[in-house]
Amino acid sequence: MKSILLIGQSNMAGRGYLTDVPPIYNERIEMLRNGRWQMMAEPIHFDREVAGVGPAASFASAWTQKHPTEKIGLIPCAEGGSSIDEWGADQPLTRHALTEAKFAMESSELIGILWHQGENDSLNGRYKAYEEKLTRVFEHFRKELALPELPIIVGQLPDFLGKQGFGLSATEFKEINQEMAKVVAKLDHCYLVSAEKLTANPDGIHINAKSQRQFGLRYYEAFANQNNVLSPLSDEDERLAEIYGRETTKNEKIYLLSRDFALGKIDFQQFMERFGAVQ
Amino acid sequence: MKSILLIGQSNMAGRGYLTDVPPIYNERIEMLRNGRWQMMAEPIHFDREVAGVGPAASFASAWTQKHPTEKIGLIPCAEGGSSIDEWGADQPLTRHALTEAKFAMESSELIGILWHQGENDSLNGRYKAYEEKLTRVFEHFRKELALPELPIIVGQLPDFLGKQGFGLSATEFKEINQEMAKVVAKLDHCYLVSAEKLTANPDGIHINAKSQRQFGLRYYEAFANQNNVLSPLSDEDERLAEIYGRETTKNEKIYLLSRDFALGKIDFQQFMERFGAVQ
Repeated sequence: MKSILLIGQSNMAGRGYLTDVPPIYNERIEMLRNGRWQMMAEPIHFDREVAGVGPAASFASAWTQKHPTEKIGLIPCAEGGSSIDEWGADQPLTRHALTEAKFAMESSELIGILWHQGENDSLNGRYKAYEEKLTRVFEHFRKELALPELPIIVGQLPDFLGKQGFGLSATEFKEINQEMAKVVAKLDHCYLVSAEKLTANPDGIHINAKSQRQFGLRYYEAFANQNNVLSPLSDEDERLAEIYGRETTKNEKIYLLSRDFALGKIDFQQFMERFGAVQ
Repeated sequence: MKSILLIGQSNMAGRGYLTDVPPIYNERIEMLRNGRWQMMAEPIHFDREVAGVGPAASFASAWTQKHPTEKIGLIPCAEGGSSIDEWGADQPLTRHALTEAKFAMESSELIGILWHQGENDSLNGRYKAYEEKLTRVFEHFRKELALPELPIIVGQLPDFLGKQGFGLSATEFKEINQEMAKVVAKLDHCYLVSAEKLTANPDGIHINAKSQRQFGLRYYEAFANQNNVLSPLSDEDERLAEIYGRETTKNEKIYLLSRDFALGKIDFQQFMERFGAVQ
């Protein structure tokens, strides 16, 4: 089994509305819970009650399409509102993410980090120190995980920032994006992902669910091809349609039936009848 | 700041429907997220997508009523479906819960453990080894946390088990309850909480939301008075009415406004107007 560490702030944790996109269930995609693996269900993160759709589910779906016999596990450690300073070496977020990654690595091979952060540093000239700080974050994770060549995929900040709602204060996102690009250019095995044409929630700061699904495909493209993805992919809609159209397996059907029964959506007789009918 | 560790299986994690009871928000109740504290919002646990109301929110509310100037933090580490063997010393659930507790203890004083487990061991004569296994679990946590007198509050299994739905297989819950009582009688600072008159979700195994609120009050009563609570409290409804009727503070109002804006329930103009009006 392979695994991926998810770190950064809210747009990595995910704030897309779950009801805006088709759900993704896939018995070959798991998520870390209490130091163990469970089948993935969104929200993958739980840093806030508003956690929703992030880029990881479509990333993992694209991965499983190319690795039809393997499993992938997601390690959710992004934290809403966190600044680059809160990802310093001695900070709780960093130490906790390393702890979670090490639990995951007891039963999986860590093959990459997905990173998205910077909204919180897009003001007051903070970009001037960003390149140095971000470099230190990536070097620290690789060192502590003893994986000096671990691929790190870095999503850019979307250009809807600085315009409305909670996004208003993020006036220097372009400067942060420039600093990010410098880090990616400087470090080996580090790739940039375009946030071009992504759309915001009404709050003006969070990427909406449909755009997060697209963003996840771009993250996967950068990861798979080991190069920067500097513009939207030409076939994002088609790829998502393929992911949504995937046939549900027997194990997934049983999971969904059990969930519906636990939530009181079907009664025990319906559960047993449908369970008996699962192929 | 004080803190409480939550361990066991699904009825400690909570499966009560969030929509069945009034929500609890209280800026003096926090929960551990990514190794740090956030204001509590239910579900506190996130072990499964069906996580909901457990006993911890009303426990913490009762605690804050008696400690009007202090904060309490909840450490969610219960795992749905876990057996007593999965809480052995070398198991991931145990090692992970200890790790989480230690993050919490960097900034709080751990003052107790709430435990609820046993449905998964209520069959096939497993109760015969339960006393010994449960004793070892409690001794291990106290030893590893270097708190040999840490209070542990143990909830009994409800008597709706063994009758319907997913509860059908838990035929030996009475035997498990007897073994639990032996452990509590044997260990110092260990107290029993009655599950009498609690009601199930339609699935026949999970305690419903209203009953979980009552159960939490009983847990608190055992914790506060350092003795067993062997029957329902006479004033559970009145105490819950007092918790639900508590006045919302300025910080809580701002939190709830920000949440509603993030979820798209109000627009930015409404957010700003209401924000300006918050007292």
